[in-house]
Amino acid sequence: MIDEKRLKWKESWRSDVFKTPVFTVQKILSISPEGRGREYITLDAPDWVIVIPVLKNAGTGKPDFVMVRQWRHGAGQMSAEFPGGVMEKNEKPETAAGRELLEETGYRAGKMIHLGTVSPNPAIMSNRVHFFAAEELEDTGATSPDEDEYVNTEIMPGSEVFRKMGHGQFIHSLMSTALLLYLQQNPSLIT
Amino acid sequence: MIDEKRLKWKESWRSDVFKTPVFTVQKILSISPEGRGREYITLDAPDWVIVIPVLKNAGTGKPDFVMVRQWRHGAGQMSAEFPGGVMEKNEKPETAAGRELLEETGYRAGKMIHLGTVSPNPAIMSNRVHFFAAEELEDTGATSPDEDEYVNTEIMPGSEVFRKMGHGQFIHSLMSTALLLYLQQNPSLIT
Repeated sequence: MIDEKRLKWKESWRSDVFKTPVFTVQKILSISPEGRGREYITLDAPDWVIVIPVLKNAGTGKPDFVMVRQWRHGAGQMSAEFPGGVMEKNEKPETAAGRELLEETGYRAGKMIHLGTVSPNPAIMSNRVHFFAAEELEDTGATSPDEDEYVNTEIMPGSEVFRKMGHGQFIHSLMSTALLLYLQQNPSLIT
Repeated sequence: MIDEKRLKWKESWRSDVFKTPVFTVQKILSISPEGRGREYITLDAPDWVIVIPVLKNAGTGKPDFVMVRQWRHGAGQMSAEFPGGVMEKNEKPETAAGRELLEETGYRAGKMIHLGTVSPNPAIMSNRVHFFAAEELEDTGATSPDEDEYVNTEIMPGSEVFRKMGHGQFIHSLMSTALLLYLQQNPSLIT
């Protein structure tokens, strides 16, 4: 058993220092296990959701995933991703996942399976990311992207997505996280 | 083949709007595929490295991983992670990974294997994370954490780390990413 008392800090206060529409920069004062105060810079943001849209391939019997490709302004390049986005106020994670899925791909999910909830980066961020797998998909044929979203949708074998993660345009770390959590429940994807 | 011309934006300029010791908030102007300009808020930061320290378990013949537990101020909680940190100026990713490994765990790596390089979040961040597996570890018996680092080190079967990711204190998404990239080269961990 770990003696966590000698590892745990105590947060004294947290205040906003710079607000943007996407996140707020905060300063916090934390008290070390030995009682010394120290300031840290962190980021607050709404929670995010990411959803793996799973289609059963009639030929192989294996899962296919629906991927979206779009330009990402931070990295300044194209990125191949699972659908996802920012949760709206008072929205439940599962609802947000279904909404983003429908908006970006046109698929409506009959079944939404929670894969896990983690921190995008607990060192500097206070928000969470909620991961889902969407099954029993119904193609409504109509997407409704945000006005600045230019998205390409494609269907790809899950095993191929596994191989491609971290390479080429599959650069978004949270998509690898999603796939790792999916593999916990579905190891047969790669076995 | 995807027609990427209708998806690609063109970055016009990027300027700093708020600097902190950890990251810089930037504003960028991007021109849409249809020629409309739009401003985005992004974050710039030095690149990060994360390294999975791999020990061969003499009993099982399977890999054990060295994990570090520490307080994380963004999430305000304990987090179980692979060693890692911020790259120093002019430092190579592999060198930074070896340095962080040694500082946090006392292990020196005989062999460093590149697992992949991704974006922590290409929507809002411009930096990269470089992932490694460290093998042929030699225990120097001496750690040298930063003065505000209170770290607990433990050795755990890799298959247990896989099961625990996303649960309890295994909350750091980038550690799940690291493990997914490790699985690409070492699927036998879970088979």
